[in-house]
Amino acid sequence: MEVVTFGETMASIRAAGLLRAGGAMTMSLGGAETNVAIGLARLGHRVSWVGRLGADEVGTFALRTLRAEAVVTDGVVVDPRRPTGLMLLERRIADVSRAAYYRANSAGSALCSDDLRAALEGNPRVLHLTGITPALSVSAAEATLWAAGEAKRRGILVSFDVNYRAKLWAVSEASAVLGPLVDLADIVIASDDELALVAPSVSEAEAVAGLHVRGVRDVVVKRGAAGASTFTAGERPVHQSAIPVPVVDTVGAGDAFTAGYLSALLDGEPTAGRLMRGATLGAFAVSGSGDWENLPYRSELALTAQSAGSTIR
Amino acid sequence: MEVVTFGETMASIRAAGLLRAGGAMTMSLGGAETNVAIGLARLGHRVSWVGRLGADEVGTFALRTLRAEAVVTDGVVVDPRRPTGLMLLERRIADVSRAAYYRANSAGSALCSDDLRAALEGNPRVLHLTGITPALSVSAAEATLWAAGEAKRRGILVSFDVNYRAKLWAVSEASAVLGPLVDLADIVIASDDELALVAPSVSEAEAVAGLHVRGVRDVVVKRGAAGASTFTAGERPVHQSAIPVPVVDTVGAGDAFTAGYLSALLDGEPTAGRLMRGATLGAFAVSGSGDWENLPYRSELALTAQSAGSTIR
Amino acid sequence: MEVVTFGETMASIRAAGLLRAGGAMTMSLGGAETNVAIGLARLGHRVSWVGRLGADEVGTFALRTLRAEAVVTDGVVVDPRRPTGLMLLERRIADVSRAAYYRANSAGSALCSDDLRAALEGNPRVLHLTGITPALSVSAAEATLWAAGEAKRRGILVSFDVNYRAKLWAVSEASAVLGPLVDLADIVIASDDELALVAPSVSEAEAVAGLHVRGVRDVVVKRGAAGASTFTAGERPVHQSAIPVPVVDTVGAGDAFTAGYLSALLDGEPTAGRLMRGATLGAFAVSGSGDWENLPYRSELALTAQSAGSTIR
Amino acid sequence: MEVVTFGETMASIRAAGLLRAGGAMTMSLGGAETNVAIGLARLGHRVSWVGRLGADEVGTFALRTLRAEAVVTDGVVVDPRRPTGLMLLERRIADVSRAAYYRANSAGSALCSDDLRAALEGNPRVLHLTGITPALSVSAAEATLWAAGEAKRRGILVSFDVNYRAKLWAVSEASAVLGPLVDLADIVIASDDELALVAPSVSEAEAVAGLHVRGVRDVVVKRGAAGASTFTAGERPVHQSAIPVPVVDTVGAGDAFTAGYLSALLDGEPTAGRLMRGATLGAFAVSGSGDWENLPYRSELALTAQSAGSTIR
Amino acid sequence: MEVVTFGETMASIRAAGLLRAGGAMTMSLGGAETNVAIGLARLGHRVSWVGRLGADEVGTFALRTLRAEAVVTDGVVVDPRRPTGLMLLERRIADVSRAAYYRANSAGSALCSDDLRAALEGNPRVLHLTGITPALSVSAAEATLWAAGEAKRRGILVSFDVNYRAKLWAVSEASAVLGPLVDLADIVIASDDELALVAPSVSEAEAVAGLHVRGVRDVVVKRGAAGASTFTAGERPVHQSAIPVPVVDTVGAGDAFTAGYLSALLDGEPTAGRLMRGATLGAFAVSGSGDWENLPYRSELALTAQSAGSTIR
Amino acid sequence: MEVVTFGETMASIRAAGLLRAGGAMTMSLGGAETNVAIGLARLGHRVSWVGRLGADEVGTFALRTLRAEAVVTDGVVVDPRRPTGLMLLERRIADVSRAAYYRANSAGSALCSDDLRAALEGNPRVLHLTGITPALSVSAAEATLWAAGEAKRRGILVSFDVNYRAKLWAVSEASAVLGPLVDLADIVIASDDELALVAPSVSEAEAVAGLHVRGVRDVVVKRGAAGASTFTAGERPVHQSAIPVPVVDTVGAGDAFTAGYLSALLDGEPTAGRLMRGATLGAFAVSGSGDWENLPYRSELALTAQSAGSTIR
Repeated sequence: MEVVTFGETMASIRAAGLLRAGGAMTMSLGGAETNVAIGLARLGHRVSWVGRLGADEVGTFALRTLRAEAVVTDGVVVDPRRPTGLMLLERRIADVSRAAYYRANSAGSALCSDDLRAALEGNPRVLHLTGITPALSVSAAEATLWAAGEAKRRGILVSFDVNYRAKLWAVSEASAVLGPLVDLADIVIASDDELALVAPSVSEAEAVAGLHVRGVRDVVVKRGAAGASTFTAGERPVHQSAIPVPVVDTVGAGDAFTAGYLSALLDGEPTAGRLMRGATLGAFAVSGSGDWENLPYRSELALTAQSAGSTIR
Repeated sequence: MEVVTFGETMASIRAAGLLRAGGAMTMSLGGAETNVAIGLARLGHRVSWVGRLGADEVGTFALRTLRAEAVVTDGVVVDPRRPTGLMLLERRIADVSRAAYYRANSAGSALCSDDLRAALEGNPRVLHLTGITPALSVSAAEATLWAAGEAKRRGILVSFDVNYRAKLWAVSEASAVLGPLVDLADIVIASDDELALVAPSVSEAEAVAGLHVRGVRDVVVKRGAAGASTFTAGERPVHQSAIPVPVVDTVGAGDAFTAGYLSALLDGEPTAGRLMRGATLGAFAVSGSGDWENLPYRSELALTAQSAGSTIR
Repeated sequence: MEVVTFGETMASIRAAGLLRAGGAMTMSLGGAETNVAIGLARLGHRVSWVGRLGADEVGTFALRTLRAEAVVTDGVVVDPRRPTGLMLLERRIADVSRAAYYRANSAGSALCSDDLRAALEGNPRVLHLTGITPALSVSAAEATLWAAGEAKRRGILVSFDVNYRAKLWAVSEASAVLGPLVDLADIVIASDDELALVAPSVSEAEAVAGLHVRGVRDVVVKRGAAGASTFTAGERPVHQSAIPVPVVDTVGAGDAFTAGYLSALLDGEPTAGRLMRGATLGAFAVSGSGDWENLPYRSELALTAQSAGSTIR
Repeated sequence: MEVVTFGETMASIRAAGLLRAGGAMTMSLGGAETNVAIGLARLGHRVSWVGRLGADEVGTFALRTLRAEAVVTDGVVVDPRRPTGLMLLERRIADVSRAAYYRANSAGSALCSDDLRAALEGNPRVLHLTGITPALSVSAAEATLWAAGEAKRRGILVSFDVNYRAKLWAVSEASAVLGPLVDLADIVIASDDELALVAPSVSEAEAVAGLHVRGVRDVVVKRGAAGASTFTAGERPVHQSAIPVPVVDTVGAGDAFTAGYLSALLDGEPTAGRLMRGATLGAFAVSGSGDWENLPYRSELALTAQSAGSTIR
Repeated sequence: MEVVTFGETMASIRAAGLLRAGGAMTMSLGGAETNVAIGLARLGHRVSWVGRLGADEVGTFALRTLRAEAVVTDGVVVDPRRPTGLMLLERRIADVSRAAYYRANSAGSALCSDDLRAALEGNPRVLHLTGITPALSVSAAEATLWAAGEAKRRGILVSFDVNYRAKLWAVSEASAVLGPLVDLADIVIASDDELALVAPSVSEAEAVAGLHVRGVRDVVVKRGAAGASTFTAGERPVHQSAIPVPVVDTVGAGDAFTAGYLSALLDGEPTAGRLMRGATLGAFAVSGSGDWENLPYRSELALTAQSAGSTIR
Repeated sequence: MEVVTFGETMASIRAAGLLRAGGAMTMSLGGAETNVAIGLARLGHRVSWVGRLGADEVGTFALRTLRAEAVVTDGVVVDPRRPTGLMLLERRIADVSRAAYYRANSAGSALCSDDLRAALEGNPRVLHLTGITPALSVSAAEATLWAAGEAKRRGILVSFDVNYRAKLWAVSEASAVLGPLVDLADIVIASDDELALVAPSVSEAEAVAGLHVRGVRDVVVKRGAAGASTFTAGERPVHQSAIPVPVVDTVGAGDAFTAGYLSALLDGEPTAGRLMRGATLGAFAVSGSGDWENLPYRSELALTAQSAGSTIR
């Protein structure tokens, strides 16, 4: 296995208009870690997603979708006593969407260390985790910390995407839990906002330096339309602009970037190549509807070069 | 107010195909009592629905829909701490659908006696209740019993639709709770299966006789495609066949029947007229998709007479 | 030209659900005579439809649709001062639909004799007219009568489909106007209800006999699911059952029958063959949505023989 | 009641492609005054819309939609002899749409002073009227003038949106009718083009000054993408830029602005706050399809601040 | 592996209306053997489908769909030089659909013996083949015969569904090729029409007897709505009626029956249980749109008992 | 006839999402020459398209569509032995779409000189050809060259759009075949990339000069969003910017430009007017979905002037 990732995934039901108006909706799968897993699998990597799903139709939908996308689901735990979560989504203005979650006591939040053991014993090259999972429950937080530690012990590279979700916990609470995860991570991926959460300081430079001191090798900062930067300890920073494409839907763009970054890392690409592939997947993600539906296959990575947007041709 | 009814209503999200396949869905409103309320309002009656909704978009959707249908919502309680419930529906075979409920700790299940007080103080002509509400929670069961008793005291006619839902409770549990409600009811509406639940006996005739003894004036038995019968104490039974129309969707047909029956009752129709209007609303309900969407307006009650199904004309 | 027909055609906008609920609709073309013209054109006949359309997008839609269906539109008059009519349709129960018309002062109703002159001077084999057109306006009634008379003078066979529409005029009014048309017709097509309108009498047999006396050669009676019969003066009546197929939408079934009947007539088929083709087109019409969309092409006439409706095969 | 507004509202049926191509359409509600009323009601204001609707399904659709949106419809007059109007819409290029109206002899155009009396006797805080209503018919023009005068007499604030529609009348005709309305208005809202229509002059400054002299307190000029300005007599002008969001559909943006402006006025906001809320509603309006469907609820007014449009995040 | 099956699968694109009218379509997967494989996999069996797909998006769609349905695709050959086939489907009347095939030189038709070797070396319990595959090409015919013989040698049970397709070859041609396959089969499944093709005789009884003599153990005759029968050598025939459900789409019903029959066989059910499960899957198949989309999961096999079709309940 | 054009046209089936995901699609008509023909016919020109279609439903769809659009189809050859081609389209990123062609041995590619003879004998004013047709087959290449020569002999103006398609042939192969066509053309239309293919040289100016020397009167260079230029021998170059509109779909924009250019030429417009009309049609083409669906009618040419894109108005 090249990559193992874990967390909660759920049905993501999008309203065509406002939720208050009822009417047409579309059900897809949503979850930061499954987004990353699908992105990697589409590029041909062997990637396993671990998590708990209910013994229900929504859980079966999740399994069916992941199998279709060639994500390995051997480690998925079907929890007979808890339902698979779901969320209702509506677009409000520009790229601001609103979500209502139905994840109370969900199977996904019951994730525990035991669920992850077998996957790590397979010694994957990379363990990818996000700051969403530890916010789900006490057992999920313990499992995340355990997994990061176990990966460290086994020499598995740990990738950590901060992914702070204000709906799930307060900054102070998150800060306390995410700190130890950062200490175990080889790669930390954060938006410019999130950087302050895991490395409070007066400037980005200082925050990055602090993370390097704490043992993080690569600090990857996502800056939205302004692109992304990688700060590797002892090397010059590398920056990559976003690829300018008409934006249809920005949901999942950050996960797409992460998948691209990790894919190029697995392929042995240097930092510039990782950022470029991250930007490429981000461009595909925003070019179509859905969290992951428009992500590219390996043969399509070169297509962004052709997109110019001419009127008369 | 002519009718007051209460219970839980929720978003009813139907999958176009199987839930496992994801894809297109449609969100509507579902709840036995709101189905009855909408049926009555479409026929021009003043009907009030009482219940709890979350302070969320789904709750607002419920309010918006009920207002559109001219159901009075003055008594609705918006519960700031609990979400509005929802269910996912898929059609499997013939008229068998499958539902997944997301109503854990829902606002609707927190209904209590206090929520109903004002509505009963308005002295409506009819209080309509179902056997679903007492299955939701202890407070909802207490509220239902309280409301039936209070209506009795005030001389409000009590209509009770047994509506046994196996997913919510066992027969023995339901039996114990529904018995006292039957004792307070003037009209009991039950499918042939449900009759045994509230009046165990060796035959339908005996069951009906027992209910009459317990003070029920009208016992209305729904027999699916075979129609429905009303047994009024001291009168000859009246039977009505189902109106033969092509069936598109049977969900909500029972509630439609009840709405038609109560509407004719309010209009002073004799038993035969009540059953006929019940059958008419049932025929409209099954002729289109949705729990209540195809219910008729008063001016349409005569349309069933025109439906013959000719090929060459 | 084999057939000339004329009348009003308009946009037919169908609601997916109830009109009161708004939402999805589909725009097609509706008009009894254009239905017949399309049915004939699909079977390979040269057929011309004459009528007035507004100089607007809806009128252009009508022209575009008729051209697509290979109906000859050379004689269509574009009226710069009047709009093309439209109707809103909703299905209510079984095969009962409800229509709201927006045809006040429509181009279609301004049809006059002059509009028809050129088409008749081409000496088509058949002139097909319906009882709808004379109900549209005084000038349209005059035009219809003129056309029937002119056809008679020229030896063109006159086919007349009674098509009484209660929304447009009263029985007494219709009776007075349609009588003279019947007197000019070679073929009269009527549902069993309509027969009484144009030939009041105590029995169908007497009504048919009366029409034969008035010079009608073929009296074709449509009996819905019970099929259709042709009574030719001096011959034994011929009856044809309806072809049993699952019914999706009965709108346009009568026009389909007429198109099939006339097509076989043009092909020189005997009465039994005419009725059979009429029944075949009726079966296609009710098998799909839309007034004419599912009508067959000549190569498809044999398909009804294959439709049996098996479950295991 | 905080606001009373009146005028014509009708079914607005949008084609998915070109009208000439037929096919999919969507029916919603359209009318400048109902757009404003819905915008205000969504922000929690008590607003009543008065107008005439036909006793038909389209009229019932209008009532149902307004009730759903919590607009008070007590004053609506159902006219049994006239149909509710409708319009067909198609998008052609950029933000240029084309409409075909079916409002000849519509119920809406039969509005008269008597219809408005009760609403004004309720002494709302604001009467909002537009320059569309007086263009509908002689009685509608009289009613509008009467209502403005009556409001003045009662001390109700009069808001007047010029809303010149070239399809309905010529500039000279409009100018003569709208002049007296301006003289009765406290607030005049006009696009830069429309300003010249009600206050011809060599410059905007002079036009504004002239309106102040005629007794208008606030002159609000809408400048499209360039934003909007308010000129209050005796105060410095205030300007507000448009909020930059990706534009999906500009129809209804002006009415959205007006609703936002009036909402802030009712809340006691100063001029800058009124313009800001107007711009906010305009941004919501253009961010989604439909005339009013995407308008915000009060809790959503702050969302525009979050919309930034990032690609990598 | 419990079952191996092989053949051609392709994109099946269904038109919503007539193909000539263009417009909306839906793409799914179609192929008799993949239908059977999906039916078995949904019931929890380990089933492998072998075939050739092009190195194109349609081929990837097929793989993605099969993986989602948990069909084992390890043996699928991706042919870099040939496209994946597709077909366009339109419903014409009742259950008569029309297909246009784009399978000239398709990857699927290039199937050869070598493609099947590995799958048979795994010694599955059952090899299922159809009479479609040998009609595709010379190499496909050779492969089918080789596989049947190899299975016989290995003691793998051979199931053969005659599935005669008149579009692919003439009766005489088919007869010559299918005869040797019948001689190698343990189970022969045929519609009553097809029986004559593989065992010409004066009566069904004689045909069945002849097949028993040739070594076929079970002869399963499908009789459409009349159900199905199994004739086992030396045992009394067993008959099963079709389960009466409203029919939405009969395409794929035969394959569904076969999947159910084989599933019960694998579970050790006696003949009556096999026919019952076959009928059950057939009932699910016809209850929804699509070739296989509505097939049941194991937990759903009991649902048919609940489908009664009531109007009032 | 004003214009004759010829080539292959086929069903163009667009996926709503990725082809690999299956699901919703839409079938339209696609072909560079039919795009141009429809563009001209919408502007009121008499234009005939010649080509081969299969005797199948897809071919009938093509005929039906062209007739609807008022393109003359008298010269179309229905080939009973070959299918009409089709392509599957999916949007990937920005304006990059991907097509899978099913045109092996298609009717369209069997075009030959004899098919074109009658159309040229009608002496149209313009013959329009593209560089796609000669790439289809040997006979199609011969037919194209023959037609250009025959037009030259008859004094028919020859318009040639280079339209190089890398999927069909290599640059060297195309160069050899297209050269002689350029020598026969009066107008050559090429994107800046394609100019080098037909007139290799160190600069655009030199390439243009070379074409003038070879007898081309007008060289029209399309520069995408940068607009287009016409270089007429002996005159000053004329440039036209693209009209800035929000871009929905760029497919067909080049053909739209060509249709607009030729339309203005037929109307006797000077070069600036031709380029302006070309740019106008290009703006319409990119404003809506589809290859040609959004092209304007003559009365709409002025609409681009109104499209400004305001937010508050």
